[in-house]
Amino acid sequence: MPLCLPQVLAFDVFGTVVNWHSGIEREVRALRPDVDAGAFALAWRAGYQPAMQRVRSGESPWTLIDDLHRLILNQVLQQFGVTDLSEEQTRHLNKAWHRLDPWPDVVAGLTRLKSKHTICTLSNGNIALLTNMAKRAGLPWDCILSAEVFRAYKPDPAVYLGVAKIFDLPPEAVMLVAAHQNDLAAARACGLQTAYIERPAEFGSSKLKDVSPDPANTRHARNFLDLAEQLGC
Amino acid sequence: MPLCLPQVLAFDVFGTVVNWHSGIEREVRALRPDVDAGAFALAWRAGYQPAMQRVRSGESPWTLIDDLHRLILNQVLQQFGVTDLSEEQTRHLNKAWHRLDPWPDVVAGLTRLKSKHTICTLSNGNIALLTNMAKRAGLPWDCILSAEVFRAYKPDPAVYLGVAKIFDLPPEAVMLVAAHQNDLAAARACGLQTAYIERPAEFGSSKLKDVSPDPANTRHARNFLDLAEQLGC
Repeated sequence: MPLCLPQVLAFDVFGTVVNWHSGIEREVRALRPDVDAGAFALAWRAGYQPAMQRVRSGESPWTLIDDLHRLILNQVLQQFGVTDLSEEQTRHLNKAWHRLDPWPDVVAGLTRLKSKHTICTLSNGNIALLTNMAKRAGLPWDCILSAEVFRAYKPDPAVYLGVAKIFDLPPEAVMLVAAHQNDLAAARACGLQTAYIERPAEFGSSKLKDVSPDPANTRHARNFLDLAEQLGC
Repeated sequence: MPLCLPQVLAFDVFGTVVNWHSGIEREVRALRPDVDAGAFALAWRAGYQPAMQRVRSGESPWTLIDDLHRLILNQVLQQFGVTDLSEEQTRHLNKAWHRLDPWPDVVAGLTRLKSKHTICTLSNGNIALLTNMAKRAGLPWDCILSAEVFRAYKPDPAVYLGVAKIFDLPPEAVMLVAAHQNDLAAARACGLQTAYIERPAEFGSSKLKDVSPDPANTRHARNFLDLAEQLGC
């Protein structure tokens, strides 16, 4: 450690690249000023892992994140007593995940990292979601990779090893960049290098999360600019 | 005709976006000045459709273009009497398809088209090839889509309909942009809009190809700047 510099940097997206909490909060607040928008965002996101788990376990057939988000949204709207949205309003709200803003360091950091590495998404989000998000936010990806390409959700090894296979590289030539230790641990078990990014406000600024380093990661960076610095970009 | 403006423009790549003939010719000439590099390029490309046809028919299992290119290259090297390349030289030459240059109008044209449309590749080339090509040439794709995502080669309808499905759009909201009438005809049969691009020198400037319009296409454009003009970008 550290190994050779990775050729491909594969990025987790929700929480790592974009601030889902403030983005969802903003859209819910605009639609329904009377609802606790921060709590709504947390409830919507809380349904995410269980929904993917049903797909991973085989209980549900393969289902895209846009559709899983909609199933969870229907429940959360009920839970928060929002029962009068039209189908068009509900569809629009569901696509709030396509309209999330990046953290302030992201565009400048990715632009630097892109100068020496191939940068791609590696998200459970579907391709259209990631493409629309990138277009709106100006994220300069070289390539958009998604669970949709592999028909498997992280932390399934097929996703991490799939990136290496696509680029015809050994796993150690790929680095997963993420703000979640469990995602990184699963990538590491597949032989990828890993970089942890501190996003203390992922769940909102009133509920800061633990961003302690895990020495098992190849890198630990405050943000994408710090990672670019560490990788000599 | 014309229908609504398409939301997604999906581009064929070899011949439409990049000049494969001059790119392959350049690399072969640099390696072996004694070989007829233009004829070598044509022979290599001539093996492309038959190789994919073996995959489409089920005679061969699913095989990426990088690997099909290599199988064809082995034969073409023999055919041209080039028998002394090292494995490393052969691998490098095989990746010449990752290093093709775009036609002169492409980067400016795509940049204009991207302002109002989602622009993606829709090529039989594999994801790594298309990503490396885009990075080297500065092609500003919103998203890289490939036969590799669909595990089917054009003109299989799964490829054309797959783009519409990924973006959750009806087929007519997608336009295939290509320099090949057979590719466009297959897309049209799936309900996509189509734009033909004139690339008379695709097979070399000494062997100009017919670029006559087919009125069945939604658009016929001299190049990407002309297409941008026609689409109001």
